[in-house]
Amino acid sequence: ASYDPKKFDAPLATVDVTIFTVINGSLNVLLVRRNEFPYMDKWSLPGGFIDLVGDNDLNATAMRKLKDKTGVDAPYLEQVGTVGSKGRDPRGWSLTVLYFALMSSEKVRLRAGSGASEVAWRPVQNGQVEEVLAFDHEELLKKALERLQNKARYTMLPGYVLPEEFTLTELINIYRVLLEEDIDNPMMRRRLLRTNLLEETGGFREGDTRPAKLYRFAREAAQHVFERNLEGGR
Amino acid sequence: ASYDPKKFDAPLATVDVTIFTVINGSLNVLLVRRNEFPYMDKWSLPGGFIDLVGDNDLNATAMRKLKDKTGVDAPYLEQVGTVGSKGRDPRGWSLTVLYFALMSSEKVRLRAGSGASEVAWRPVQNGQVEEVLAFDHEELLKKALERLQNKARYTMLPGYVLPEEFTLTELINIYRVLLEEDIDNPMMRRRLLRTNLLEETGGFREGDTRPAKLYRFAREAAQHVFERNLEGGR
Repeated sequence: ASYDPKKFDAPLATVDVTIFTVINGSLNVLLVRRNEFPYMDKWSLPGGFIDLVGDNDLNATAMRKLKDKTGVDAPYLEQVGTVGSKGRDPRGWSLTVLYFALMSSEKVRLRAGSGASEVAWRPVQNGQVEEVLAFDHEELLKKALERLQNKARYTMLPGYVLPEEFTLTELINIYRVLLEEDIDNPMMRRRLLRTNLLEETGGFREGDTRPAKLYRFAREAAQHVFERNLEGGR
Repeated sequence: ASYDPKKFDAPLATVDVTIFTVINGSLNVLLVRRNEFPYMDKWSLPGGFIDLVGDNDLNATAMRKLKDKTGVDAPYLEQVGTVGSKGRDPRGWSLTVLYFALMSSEKVRLRAGSGASEVAWRPVQNGQVEEVLAFDHEELLKKALERLQNKARYTMLPGYVLPEEFTLTELINIYRVLLEEDIDNPMMRRRLLRTNLLEETGGFREGDTRPAKLYRFAREAAQHVFERNLEGGR
């Protein structure tokens, strides 16, 4: 009736973290260059093994590995899904629990840590970075991006890469970058304002044309889920 | 430069499977009674350890454990998420990858297999079964139900517990059971018919009142995602 944990061979168990941001109007993802085997010197998503003593749960592993490898403290991490197979890691049967977050790049100072020789934001186009990534991380990046875009269609999530005060044009441009789609400006303005999740700050941003009103998010904006997707006017 | 897999302690890694069905107008879930430690004799979701030799990937583990413990072949399994922590299993740090499916109970013949002394459909009310479940399986059941309901709001998934031909009233009743909500019949009829995902078979079902038209799903129905949730008339 007693249990021997060595009776079952366990797979390698890791977490990987996909941090997205928008820099100069382009979608970027946070990558580290590995300085350990396997895939030495290759770029990858930050991640690593569960620490059975130090980590209370999977979210703690993800937060810790992100901080250790890149210096980044994430305000939250959302689980995307888990990929596990015989072939995805040359060291043997391996599963990884994938997380993502969208952050402002201005709020973080990158610092390459244990297991990483470099850390950098890299532009993402059509779901890909220029670099060849370690393991199946190109596939993981695509999965995380799909989740980000799906969430962006139904929530105010995209606004959370902006500074506290922003113009409607700035907000719509973030949606445009994240969704990698053209968005009808006047319709999107109407839909965003109709939500009552934006408050006028009273201030204006001077620009090429007439001054643009500044907005901030209402407190309840973070929890709001749109009943229809934001682009669809149908 | 070589790698020793024993260098990293790995957590226990399992899958658990939540199979839902509708029996006599009630939501039911497939449970097994454990005949092994820990939680001997307690009811639980069917699941178990990854077989590093036999299982090519996580989905294969889930399909195999479901079949071995309950006799059920699932037509598909969808991943819900992964829960992992120091405390969820008395044997040590453990993670489980949770799957779900919705099936017709008429298509399966239950057979308790390895590790299970009984297998049965159990009614679910307010996200709970009457039985006290092993591990954190009450929490897992709630997570899987939340996903099922979320998906039911945007897809024709609920229809897949019905026989090939069905009336609109039968289909709407399944939505009502899965969503545990009252649904406005005439509005729901309009919305379902407007999708063009239902084909008239030409047949009728005789009932208490006038005969009701029989429908079947169009081929593309399984892939369809509604832009708005199905109940919302707004």
